[in-house]
Amino acid sequence: MEFSSKLLEKAVNEMSQLPGIGKRTALRLVLHLLKQPREQTEFLSQSLLNMRSEIKFCKSCHNVSDVDICEICANPKRNHQMVCVVEDIRDVMAIENTGQFRGIYHVLGGRISPIDGIGPSQLNINSLVEKVKSGNISEIILALSSTMEGDTTNFYIYKHIKDCNIITSSIARGISVGDELEYADEVTLGRSIVNRIPFENSFKNN
Amino acid sequence: MEFSSKLLEKAVNEMSQLPGIGKRTALRLVLHLLKQPREQTEFLSQSLLNMRSEIKFCKSCHNVSDVDICEICANPKRNHQMVCVVEDIRDVMAIENTGQFRGIYHVLGGRISPIDGIGPSQLNINSLVEKVKSGNISEIILALSSTMEGDTTNFYIYKHIKDCNIITSSIARGISVGDELEYADEVTLGRSIVNRIPFENSFKNN
Repeated sequence: MEFSSKLLEKAVNEMSQLPGIGKRTALRLVLHLLKQPREQTEFLSQSLLNMRSEIKFCKSCHNVSDVDICEICANPKRNHQMVCVVEDIRDVMAIENTGQFRGIYHVLGGRISPIDGIGPSQLNINSLVEKVKSGNISEIILALSSTMEGDTTNFYIYKHIKDCNIITSSIARGISVGDELEYADEVTLGRSIVNRIPFENSFKNN
Repeated sequence: MEFSSKLLEKAVNEMSQLPGIGKRTALRLVLHLLKQPREQTEFLSQSLLNMRSEIKFCKSCHNVSDVDICEICANPKRNHQMVCVVEDIRDVMAIENTGQFRGIYHVLGGRISPIDGIGPSQLNINSLVEKVKSGNISEIILALSSTMEGDTTNFYIYKHIKDCNIITSSIARGISVGDELEYADEVTLGRSIVNRIPFENSFKNN
């Protein structure tokens, strides 16, 4: 791609560093900004800079936050004995959107994946184990992705906390609500039969 | 979408103003920046700001440029009597990449589209007509999209310059190189028969 302007080329190159944004998309986005009032580019740049330099990670759960302890961890109405372990900030948002969980979270920041060079030391696992050993927690809910890396991470955490005398649970795997059985994959369907639940529980909400 | 951080929310909202970027994609991009070194966000923001505030449009052809007259218009080796009329800066890049055109360009900045509220006065049509009337041009090549708006714009330009005694041509429409006839649409195939060319010309390159 040949550019008639170095300024344009630089902006496109920086934009195309973002995941899933190729050179052509980057050019489209940058030319869009060029057509809009100058303020839009200023607002975008400023909000990215502010976000990157001022955002904090909650000292307790590692969720993003504007203060040292995030709103969820600082909320006395939430059950601080029940910790839901998730990979990512987006998972916290997804679970919060369901309105079904009133405990607190622990964000690992990823999952163990040797192929990507991510080991337990790069994740917030030590602080979770310490939190559990402090004795103020009664239940850990493992809510990681249902992938090999997720299962590995689940098992690694379980190995470190299994002697701590707390309940360790995993979110239910099974057929999605609204799904038809014939289209479900065999592993999911098999697990959903092995881990069947009492019928009375199946229409309980919370 | 509920955010645990106002800074994050603001960055995501600004990012999702870009075309084709929804809230979820914006969140993914912003969280990616958060995981990268701070410099990446600074480079991105700074290059966007520099681009938006310092970029110029060539005073002759309206292409983006770092100086008042773009490289193409300032190049004495190019044929300044032959002007290729395009909608957009991206079209200049696309034609330049072919290496088949040695004339200069004129960027309209869009096409006439009453449904989007774009009339001739919003486009760089007047400066094109003036350029033609100045008498230094021998041929105008209309290279707009083959859509109703493109055709309307072509016709509007043609109407204003047809008395100026210059050659007005349009880029060839036909079957793409490498395409099979049976999959071509009827209009394209029909046009390619009506506008057939001498066989000797079909393997000429330049």
